[in-house]
Amino acid sequence: MQNNKRTEIARLGEFGLIRHLTENIKLKNKSSVLGVGDDAAVLSYPEENTRVLVTTDLLLEGIHFDLMYVPLKHLGYKSAVVNFSDIYAMNGQPRQITVSLGISKRFSVEDLEEFYAGLNLACEQYGVDIVGGDTSSSYTGFTISVTCIGEGIEGNIVMRNGAKENDLICVSGDLGAAYMGLQLLEREKAVFEGKPGFSPDFSGKEYLLERQLKPEARKDIIDALAKENILPTSMMDVSDGLSSELIHICKQSKTGCRIFEERIPIDYQTAVMAEQFNMNVTTVAMNGGEDYELLFTVPLHMHDSVSKIKGVHVIGHITRESLGNILETRDGSEIAIQAQGWNSLEE
Amino acid sequence: MQNNKRTEIARLGEFGLIRHLTENIKLKNKSSVLGVGDDAAVLSYPEENTRVLVTTDLLLEGIHFDLMYVPLKHLGYKSAVVNFSDIYAMNGQPRQITVSLGISKRFSVEDLEEFYAGLNLACEQYGVDIVGGDTSSSYTGFTISVTCIGEGIEGNIVMRNGAKENDLICVSGDLGAAYMGLQLLEREKAVFEGKPGFSPDFSGKEYLLERQLKPEARKDIIDALAKENILPTSMMDVSDGLSSELIHICKQSKTGCRIFEERIPIDYQTAVMAEQFNMNVTTVAMNGGEDYELLFTVPLHMHDSVSKIKGVHVIGHITRESLGNILETRDGSEIAIQAQGWNSLEE
Repeated sequence: MQNNKRTEIARLGEFGLIRHLTENIKLKNKSSVLGVGDDAAVLSYPEENTRVLVTTDLLLEGIHFDLMYVPLKHLGYKSAVVNFSDIYAMNGQPRQITVSLGISKRFSVEDLEEFYAGLNLACEQYGVDIVGGDTSSSYTGFTISVTCIGEGIEGNIVMRNGAKENDLICVSGDLGAAYMGLQLLEREKAVFEGKPGFSPDFSGKEYLLERQLKPEARKDIIDALAKENILPTSMMDVSDGLSSELIHICKQSKTGCRIFEERIPIDYQTAVMAEQFNMNVTTVAMNGGEDYELLFTVPLHMHDSVSKIKGVHVIGHITRESLGNILETRDGSEIAIQAQGWNSLEE
Repeated sequence: MQNNKRTEIARLGEFGLIRHLTENIKLKNKSSVLGVGDDAAVLSYPEENTRVLVTTDLLLEGIHFDLMYVPLKHLGYKSAVVNFSDIYAMNGQPRQITVSLGISKRFSVEDLEEFYAGLNLACEQYGVDIVGGDTSSSYTGFTISVTCIGEGIEGNIVMRNGAKENDLICVSGDLGAAYMGLQLLEREKAVFEGKPGFSPDFSGKEYLLERQLKPEARKDIIDALAKENILPTSMMDVSDGLSSELIHICKQSKTGCRIFEERIPIDYQTAVMAEQFNMNVTTVAMNGGEDYELLFTVPLHMHDSVSKIKGVHVIGHITRESLGNILETRDGSEIAIQAQGWNSLEE
């Protein structure tokens, strides 16, 4: 799509295509014994206290991305990163991915090279190996299924169910930007469709676009927590939206929570765009999703050490289950937190 | 689809749906530490000589299955089994799967219950745990992505690249039946579409349908080989067709091969159907695919012990690379083996 040269996939065939896309992969991790090219990949995780983490994400054209404004290289990068984010959210390190693609006929070999360039860049950046996958034609849209394998240390793996009363609720980075980036892209697409030759102006909004199109996983936060000897009591990544994730943690931990509107980290560009779109910026931050930030809880006495970590914000605390999940607004009123995240099945 | 009761998926929501489909899963394997419900599954493979095997398969509506004649329960079963087959083809044992689904709006909760009933049955049968997945709506067809994790023992894992000159080429079961089952289903569908109220007659053809709709993976052959102390020099499963798989093994092993038409195992029903369809039954057996039988090579001196295993057929032997990949026909002429398998990208 971005490329002018167009080689038909039929020229290579399925096996030729896979070979072409994967032949230059060099395995980086000791745990990657055998990669692409046999019936299964072979991995090695023999340390007694090592646990193998597995997560998977399905990305479908029309639901999770629109090829009209998502460059394939970015899409490849994002497909990998959203899976890494799930492994970090267990306090683990991603090591391998498998990549299955359903490819529509309008794709050329060059399009897939772009997609793989993004995948490879993400894998380079995060130290992960591509070890397998499956490729098929698709009569419908572009279909991407990535499975990520990682490792964690027994006793250090952080689940969603360990939050305790009085624990501090922390979130990394800022929230709502990816959602505003999506709104912006959708608006410009609508304008574009009405006006041939229209060129969108994104200046000053680069951060929002980057958060939507090329998100990063918070390996830096996981590494910083380890350095500070902080083991969160619960953790997950913010993919469906802060509200939805808080409800998951509280439900699985059998607790309530109280967070404070004024403490929710929001970037300046997010606030400006929300204003332009006439949206409540807190609603955007609570329910937008796709932030891929880490939401976690730590014991109260770790307040000082966790606050020292750059990019971590304490936004509230865990309460008794009977107190419910509460957002305290700037004017001191209380709102029950409800999930309104990206539930595409409920649209 | 099979069910009369219809509960809309929106009533449960995405998380409610996943909970509903997975809440009764009991983990069977020691290596399954944590299943569905967190950011990632947690597995444990700490034995020093154990290797972790990972394989993945993508199944797309319209490409890999037609919901007009594939019951959802069978589809669930097959989605799991085709992955198990890849793990057995490494001489390993499947232990866990993750299941990602893209669900079109015409599906009800009951449809997914059917699909999961098939998945669960396969997992029960083969001793595998469902430990995770992802669920999304799909604007297009039903999308299924299964990743299977298994274990193998270092030194006993069998790849595609170990075949040696004079090794015997063996295949389990019989070939071409799944392909003839598909032809039969396609024919009856075409007839059906022209005639409302038409009821297809499949009597006497049950084996072909079963091979297409509810294939099994050859755990029994892997277990029998171990019992006979036979470690194949190379192995893969027959998913794309015997021709295609032989070429893979020879290419990766840098050998040639010679197989004998008269030794290719073909079921009586396959032969009868091929005759009816005016197809060459050897072509069907060589290129049909979806057999999920095991193709493997063993050293020549193991001829007697491998021949003892029920369902294993010696169909030829490995040769020098320069001799090419040859099929010797019944009348003694030689044909170069060419892959014409299921290469849906080349259609």
